[in-house]
Amino acid sequence: MEANQFKAFGKEMIDYVAGYLENIRDRRVVPTVEPGYLRPLIPEKAPEKPDKWEDVMADIERVIMPGVTHWHSPRFHAYFPTGNSYPAIVADILSGAIACIGFTWIASPACTELEVVMLDWLGKMLGLPEEFLACSGGKGGGVIQGTASEATLVALLGAKARAIARVKKEQPEMSDADIVSKLVGYTSSQSHSSVERAGLLGGVKLRSLLPDETNRLRGETLENAIKEDLDAGLIPFYAVNTLGTTSSCTFDRLDELGPVCNEYNVWLHIDAAYAGSAFICPEYSVTINDFFQIFDEGHRTSGLLQLQPPQMVAGELRLFRHVAEGPSWLVNAFNVDPLYLKHEQQGSAPDYRHWQIPLGRRFRALKLWFVLRLFGVENLQAHIRKQIELAHYFESLVRSDDRFEITEEVIMGLVCFRLRGSNETNEAFLKRLNGRGAIHLVPSKIRDVYFLRLAVCSRMTEKSDIDISWKEVKETADELLAKNHCG
Amino acid sequence: MEANQFKAFGKEMIDYVAGYLENIRDRRVVPTVEPGYLRPLIPEKAPEKPDKWEDVMADIERVIMPGVTHWHSPRFHAYFPTGNSYPAIVADILSGAIACIGFTWIASPACTELEVVMLDWLGKMLGLPEEFLACSGGKGGGVIQGTASEATLVALLGAKARAIARVKKEQPEMSDADIVSKLVGYTSSQSHSSVERAGLLGGVKLRSLLPDETNRLRGETLENAIKEDLDAGLIPFYAVNTLGTTSSCTFDRLDELGPVCNEYNVWLHIDAAYAGSAFICPEYSVTINDFFQIFDEGHRTSGLLQLQPPQMVAGELRLFRHVAEGPSWLVNAFNVDPLYLKHEQQGSAPDYRHWQIPLGRRFRALKLWFVLRLFGVENLQAHIRKQIELAHYFESLVRSDDRFEITEEVIMGLVCFRLRGSNETNEAFLKRLNGRGAIHLVPSKIRDVYFLRLAVCSRMTEKSDIDISWKEVKETADELLAKNHCG
Repeated sequence: MEANQFKAFGKEMIDYVAGYLENIRDRRVVPTVEPGYLRPLIPEKAPEKPDKWEDVMADIERVIMPGVTHWHSPRFHAYFPTGNSYPAIVADILSGAIACIGFTWIASPACTELEVVMLDWLGKMLGLPEEFLACSGGKGGGVIQGTASEATLVALLGAKARAIARVKKEQPEMSDADIVSKLVGYTSSQSHSSVERAGLLGGVKLRSLLPDETNRLRGETLENAIKEDLDAGLIPFYAVNTLGTTSSCTFDRLDELGPVCNEYNVWLHIDAAYAGSAFICPEYSVTINDFFQIFDEGHRTSGLLQLQPPQMVAGELRLFRHVAEGPSWLVNAFNVDPLYLKHEQQGSAPDYRHWQIPLGRRFRALKLWFVLRLFGVENLQAHIRKQIELAHYFESLVRSDDRFEITEEVIMGLVCFRLRGSNETNEAFLKRLNGRGAIHLVPSKIRDVYFLRLAVCSRMTEKSDIDISWKEVKETADELLAKNHCG
Repeated sequence: MEANQFKAFGKEMIDYVAGYLENIRDRRVVPTVEPGYLRPLIPEKAPEKPDKWEDVMADIERVIMPGVTHWHSPRFHAYFPTGNSYPAIVADILSGAIACIGFTWIASPACTELEVVMLDWLGKMLGLPEEFLACSGGKGGGVIQGTASEATLVALLGAKARAIARVKKEQPEMSDADIVSKLVGYTSSQSHSSVERAGLLGGVKLRSLLPDETNRLRGETLENAIKEDLDAGLIPFYAVNTLGTTSSCTFDRLDELGPVCNEYNVWLHIDAAYAGSAFICPEYSVTINDFFQIFDEGHRTSGLLQLQPPQMVAGELRLFRHVAEGPSWLVNAFNVDPLYLKHEQQGSAPDYRHWQIPLGRRFRALKLWFVLRLFGVENLQAHIRKQIELAHYFESLVRSDDRFEITEEVIMGLVCFRLRGSNETNEAFLKRLNGRGAIHLVPSKIRDVYFLRLAVCSRMTEKSDIDISWKEVKETADELLAKNHCG
């Protein structure tokens, strides 16, 4: 493909995606295709000679769109929101053209340096104390991880390396394998599934603790578990505190868990992958400030804070504090340093390859730079406030109808609700609701109570969209209850 | 940012990147900036109100480009090539607009289904036997991993899970920790650094074995190590066979290692992250066919084949065979299945989240689809042949000058060479060569012999570019030797 063809093709694609996003409400949010739908629509093998780009363009509507779940439709209320914005798309064009692999500073200095400064920008937006920032001159700083799961796994592996080193120092006769077999971490039964998976991948025991009746993990529960395990000769090393759980956007009691972790020298990993974005609004940063207070008192625990960036950017950010106890555990534990990756500036700038699982990394900071500049902090705050407001609006509609109940306090952009009645009724209700195809939700279950989760996901969602979603919910209930009545 | 602004901005960026790539030869390949260069060039924090996109556009040349190492310049000969092409950039625009997270089939059916079929297309291009393909109706199929490192780690974790399960069945009294402490894997001292790192991350012993005098790992070496470890009560479980090492693009003796792994029931991981692309040319697929012959004889070992896709696509592909022994070890070992990720079609299509470390995944198959269609197999083969031909051309220039020696057989697009003389002379030579700024190479060292690696990286490299690179090499040698002579 020549440059001129690329220009024509690229510009046509720009127009196409603008049209796609601006008119996304017209599409059925979840497709009706069956598994295996796509294969018959395209050839059995790659063409020997090039196709025309115009044919590729035409195949998007024919082949791809019938099978797309439209995550950025205001009708999409499943899971949690993912990043999508015009500035981010444009930044990715540039990232794809430069296509450097930023594993070391010299491999593309701009790739590393922009990330260092962008994470400082974000840290300032979140109101983090200076020592968390690279610009403090200390060892703080952040990194963009590919996904939340990787961030969680990296934290767990860092905690594991730290625990092994500590125990070996105290009991040099113990082998690594002995130590690993005694390590135990703690998570809530409400933590994200990627925490459990990190335990499996990292080869360490994780105990799933029960939260209280409001679904928050409490300090006493953690402390009792730690004491029990210490008595049994185990080595507590890691705990996860979720701020905004996936099932119900609940906040664990950081004010209680933090001191316990300090007391027992347990690495506390804070997972705020969804709700963390909201901390850029001062009115929502209270929780995070509790965190700093805890850690200003005792520095033994390394604070790992995992936040999803402002919702319009893809990717996951982590900010490290007290690097001597944070990233250095990762950097040193998994450091391999072949000659072909060495460079003369080693040590005077971060080589991000040591801060993550992969060696390779894209020029991701461009997206953050474009998004922060082209929205501005005010608009990002306004976006978050609006999504929360829309969730509260949906909550008020649910509360206005006696057939329904709200099952969890609405704090961010997630509303958990159900029909008063059995789990079976609610399962039938969700199946019917999703089956109508106008909106899409996924369920969850806590203490055997099945409920529906409505997340405000699209950056384009307006009050009128919430009215439509509510109308769908209400009409589905009418249908179901009429049917049940007749049946 | 409104749609109209996006259209103007996006199209300007398309023009910019076309101009960047078409004129990339005019830029100094490695920047001259010092660590910390970027911070003073931009504000200390994110703007409160939006910047103009025109200002962002202007800042690319002012802020970013001075710090970019131009990986796609024909003057860039470091590391190995990474993916970059016009069709891939356009595909990423679409991927960024759809911005689905394809963790399950229902989360965006097109995202999963296109990947399944694209990996079949690629499997056919490589001439893989049918059982490797999803379309065989069996359990074969491939997946795109984010990076080569992740592919290697996933394979190691799968092998670990398989070994634990096998030993537990034979010796139910052994604990997981006991088993893990006895596991031992094998790699060559010439394997990529990500293999060693996978061992560290996976918490298992890896023995680094010495290759023969031509740098190939031999079957006898592996067998001796396995026997030794079995005698010591250890459990051999995993071996890596590199086809195209990073230091010198050497091919381990798959014809010898394969049977040994079969004999001792050791999971053989084939790392062809660089050279595997060339297997789409029939004349280079001989090696891979050896592999199939081995595994047609004994099916106990699960073949994991890690290939970098045709060089114009970013990402890593893996193809699994005998899924009962391949991905199922991953799927089952690390399966966590919360209600919010369940769906009705589970089991009738792959949920790729089980095949990888992260939960989230982009719509990456679009890039493969666009690239394969818009180049066509013929042009991709032509591209690979041309890069290898250019490497041989550079080799001939080096051989024409008695001051130099070729240190490794040139098979693919990498030429390993050095000045006849000491390591110190060659270190000074590389420093001077890179310091001139016209071309960029990285060194390596095998058995204490330091040499230079010249990889043909850019898809735009022509014979005239190689002439320029040779001229640089030659003139630098002239300078250095003249200086040494005078000094």
